[in-house]
Amino acid sequence: MSVYKRLQELGIALPPPPPLGGLYTPYKRVGNLVYTAGQGPIVDGSPVMIGKLGAEITVEQGQEAARVCVINILSIMDKYLGDLNKVTNVVKLLAFVASTPQFSDQPQVINGGSKLFLDVFGENGRHARSAIGTNVLPGNIPVEIEAIFEVED
Amino acid sequence: MSVYKRLQELGIALPPPPPLGGLYTPYKRVGNLVYTAGQGPIVDGSPVMIGKLGAEITVEQGQEAARVCVINILSIMDKYLGDLNKVTNVVKLLAFVASTPQFSDQPQVINGGSKLFLDVFGENGRHARSAIGTNVLPGNIPVEIEAIFEVED
Amino acid sequence: MSVYKRLQELGIALPPPPPLGGLYTPYKRVGNLVYTAGQGPIVDGSPVMIGKLGAEITVEQGQEAARVCVINILSIMDKYLGDLNKVTNVVKLLAFVASTPQFSDQPQVINGGSKLFLDVFGENGRHARSAIGTNVLPGNIPVEIEAIFEVED
Repeated sequence: MSVYKRLQELGIALPPPPPLGGLYTPYKRVGNLVYTAGQGPIVDGSPVMIGKLGAEITVEQGQEAARVCVINILSIMDKYLGDLNKVTNVVKLLAFVASTPQFSDQPQVINGGSKLFLDVFGENGRHARSAIGTNVLPGNIPVEIEAIFEVED
Repeated sequence: MSVYKRLQELGIALPPPPPLGGLYTPYKRVGNLVYTAGQGPIVDGSPVMIGKLGAEITVEQGQEAARVCVINILSIMDKYLGDLNKVTNVVKLLAFVASTPQFSDQPQVINGGSKLFLDVFGENGRHARSAIGTNVLPGNIPVEIEAIFEVED
Repeated sequence: MSVYKRLQELGIALPPPPPLGGLYTPYKRVGNLVYTAGQGPIVDGSPVMIGKLGAEITVEQGQEAARVCVINILSIMDKYLGDLNKVTNVVKLLAFVASTPQFSDQPQVINGGSKLFLDVFGENGRHARSAIGTNVLPGNIPVEIEAIFEVED
């Protein structure tokens, strides 16, 4: 089934990619690999939430933040690759969760983003992953995720 | 010499890969590259130690934790690649050490894992690496390591 | 224009690569990709500054630290690749900024390094990137950056 049909069924309309936060590009392709820049839970140019897990942000909110990060990654792939159906595999996620020193459920938080990749791409969306805690992220966002994709020739 | 012979000489019997901690796969191959998910010092399904460097965990304990992470990475490669002798290079490690804000010997800790790759694969096991501090890791483990390998066709 | 001519115009004389801080290699090539080990702001074998953003280190100092990290990455590529003109793309940076829990301008800090890649390689130097906060880095350095390059056959 088309990736766009699946997105429609999930009720997701891809937004434009978020504005850049620095001197980089959101999308870099080398051969059949695409690297995206780290994405935060940005909607309409602003974070939908700020704060840390273990403090202001609940696990459920963190999962929603991770889901928004993945929507932004999808919007980048859609814009720059031109057709999400050319994604052959979601290869790898590196995910960071802004956390108090006591919060240690980072994988549960990032599942909120990983699930969307599975929902959209099926088994090809299943990826290797690290979910890491950190004391602070840019702009005080709770979650940041970067991705590597395999794409068609 | 066979990688399995080397493991035997080192007294290492590869365990089954650790249980998954989320919606991901421990092993993803794209072309001749394999990405593993981040691995912790898990034995028989549970962390062999929890806590942070600079607090409950000594450098020597952290090195042992890093070694267990690498054993788990090897167990994943053995199971999914089918034959560790098909590994042509250990390419890159990204390693995180849960640390107090004052602890700054992360590289010494991760050497405990890097050394095992060298012992097992010889010079092909020598890898690029970053060893990074963080305030907390999933399940309060002290060390997490992910790896990229080059493998035979 | 030759990369070396650009470096000269920028007033940069590449130093030898920094001494290794552990059991790894600074440069690992697989196919047309090169992975570098994480580099700190090391000059003549020692950190040019230590401390954290939000505490002892200003944003301007952090940008200078990021620039020195990138100079060290360039020195590694020069030594091991043999000719910086064989770099076809700067693909991806993963950058860590040692930060107090309140400091959240990591991207602005890392721009100090990203800008140098753009100055040296032009548009081919534009890269995907994540700029992540952390509570502590090896040796108490303020910034650490690792890079992936695409290089000629």
